[in-house]
Amino acid sequence: MLIALLPGDGIGPEVITQAKRVLDAVGLDGLIYEEAPVGGAAYKASGHPLPSETLDLAKRADAILFGAVGDPDCDALERHLRPEQAILGLRKELELFANLRPATLFPELAGASALRPEIATQIDLMIVRELNGDVYFGEKGMRKTADGKREGYDIMSYNEDEVRRIAHVGFKTAMARDQRLCSVDKANVLETSQLWRDVVIEVASEYPDIQLSHMYVDNCAMQLVRNPGQFDVIVTGNLFGDILSDQASMCAGSIGMLPSASLDSGGKGLYEPIHGSAPDIAGQGKANPLATILSAAMMLRYSLSMAEAADQIEAAVASALAAGARSADLGGTMSTSDMGDAVIAAL
Amino acid sequence: MLIALLPGDGIGPEVITQAKRVLDAVGLDGLIYEEAPVGGAAYKASGHPLPSETLDLAKRADAILFGAVGDPDCDALERHLRPEQAILGLRKELELFANLRPATLFPELAGASALRPEIATQIDLMIVRELNGDVYFGEKGMRKTADGKREGYDIMSYNEDEVRRIAHVGFKTAMARDQRLCSVDKANVLETSQLWRDVVIEVASEYPDIQLSHMYVDNCAMQLVRNPGQFDVIVTGNLFGDILSDQASMCAGSIGMLPSASLDSGGKGLYEPIHGSAPDIAGQGKANPLATILSAAMMLRYSLSMAEAADQIEAAVASALAAGARSADLGGTMSTSDMGDAVIAAL
Ligand SMILES: CC(C)[C@H](C(=O)O)[C@@H](O)C(=O)O
Ligand SMILES: CC(C)[C@H](C(=O)O)[C@@H](O)C(=O)O
Repeated sequence: MLIALLPGDGIGPEVITQAKRVLDAVGLDGLIYEEAPVGGAAYKASGHPLPSETLDLAKRADAILFGAVGDPDCDALERHLRPEQAILGLRKELELFANLRPATLFPELAGASALRPEIATQIDLMIVRELNGDVYFGEKGMRKTADGKREGYDIMSYNEDEVRRIAHVGFKTAMARDQRLCSVDKANVLETSQLWRDVVIEVASEYPDIQLSHMYVDNCAMQLVRNPGQFDVIVTGNLFGDILSDQASMCAGSIGMLPSASLDSGGKGLYEPIHGSAPDIAGQGKANPLATILSAAMMLRYSLSMAEAADQIEAAVASALAAGARSADLGGTMSTSDMGDAVIAAL
Repeated sequence: MLIALLPGDGIGPEVITQAKRVLDAVGLDGLIYEEAPVGGAAYKASGHPLPSETLDLAKRADAILFGAVGDPDCDALERHLRPEQAILGLRKELELFANLRPATLFPELAGASALRPEIATQIDLMIVRELNGDVYFGEKGMRKTADGKREGYDIMSYNEDEVRRIAHVGFKTAMARDQRLCSVDKANVLETSQLWRDVVIEVASEYPDIQLSHMYVDNCAMQLVRNPGQFDVIVTGNLFGDILSDQASMCAGSIGMLPSASLDSGGKGLYEPIHGSAPDIAGQGKANPLATILSAAMMLRYSLSMAEAADQIEAAVASALAAGARSADLGGTMSTSDMGDAVIAAL
């Protein structure tokens, strides 16, 4: 099976290197790796953040392990040439519409959460974020108002098919967990949210065992601080999911710990840490590679049917933490490769 | 001077009653009060959430003290008849474009924050939220896609004038505080945000003493948990401000503690607690009235040039807390009117 390695920008290459080392150490048969540039790195090398060879590789591959994109050098480029367009392009071109973002605290890290330990340790939630629609992909641009002023605009929208397919992922995810699904929207203000809520309620009739609730996004942002333990699965749109999942990650300890999967309808997926390219610490060996290592584990489980190997990696991460492995974000002094070593030693 | 009292729905009337009692107890000369229905209460009484008499009163008044709107009985109404339209309509009709939402923890309440006390006690930030534009007020509706599917849509946009006037409020607010302004957007994805960022940078040249930074909204949601003490003033659009200010409120203790001001360009304002109508506890005397009492203090300071009386009320709230006054949201058992009594006793 072919795995595309797309390291990208900033700390991306460093964390991908460690994840690849861990995959090698597990000793899996039949995996082939191919690497390609993406993001600012690809733009600098060849003038485009998602070169056609990279997109081709991603299409051919059975799964994609992705580092991070984002490069301040590219801030002044036209939008379609910026690093972020690479990840947005991959999500759209490969129809990776379902983004799974677990937020769970490793008990060893209760001390690293900004929340009180008794609140933090109760967190065990999964955010299911829609990834192919919303204001991210609507028509957008700069125009002039009637009196000649500059105006920026972006159209937010969802149609019923788009909502239905992600709602099903939300309900199915809840079936496999604690049977509770909270749909997050802003239906008191937005028509897009009203359609979202209507369709989620329609889909609910197919899942009579699931306890469905609805919450406004502002309230949810508050509840994720106040009492994150109340949530099992949250399903929401692209923009709200972006904000809430970053917030939830921090409740659960460090953003350096959290993996994600972006799946199409057939089980093919792109796997990436939810942190960004962190240009400020790039190249210094300070990045925590565990989010990427855990993303590799998700890849084995969801796209490659290697659940046992995934369990092995996750257990090794837990053991490494229990043995005291801590990178800077976790309050420790270990380097990126030290952290990789610790996981490999625990395997 | 004329003050419009708009109690609204749910716990709105209960908290407004206490704020009015406190204002009376301060013994201010020359204040006249007129009350009018708003939100679901107004809809039930007269068929519209913002009756023209209520809007007229709000226009005539020098300041507006507002409770809360929102009523689950109204969820199935057409959008223009829902309770929320009353507050959106007031903000728009009166051009209340600048929403100031302080988040500060009363030291007495360090124990009530979900954050670790050492993180929570450092919070002293002001969110300046734009309130007249963004996806809230763009064209919106339900339509059919080419293949006949239901689709909801909402247009997000800002023009340069709208951004400029709120940016000035942000910079001026920072001038009066710690001289640091963080502008929050999603410029890596949204054109509306790109225009926002461009204009904020232009306006910055008029405030050379202010240290300006920019942050993506997802990162900001994370930083507000990780290290909220890093912020002085945050300026952001209507939607992001809605989410981030609710989140920040919870970091600062209870949402039951936080007031807000919504100002026009001349200093007229609407003052309201940032919490909602809380239908689940309405009529039970459980609501915390302090956010509304503190909103009344903001009203005296910003719209009525009665800074001394404002200080007096704020000091009385602090004393009441120091003396142990705690409603349910603060882990206590005192009723809404007990809390009012405690503040009046401390005056
Ligand atoms: C890089 C950016 C375009 C992206 C997003 O907003 O989706 C990132 O924040 C994420 O959450 O994966
Ligand atoms: C009631 C609702 C329309 C309102 C908003 O979204 O602005 C509320 O959440 C607020 O923040 O004041």
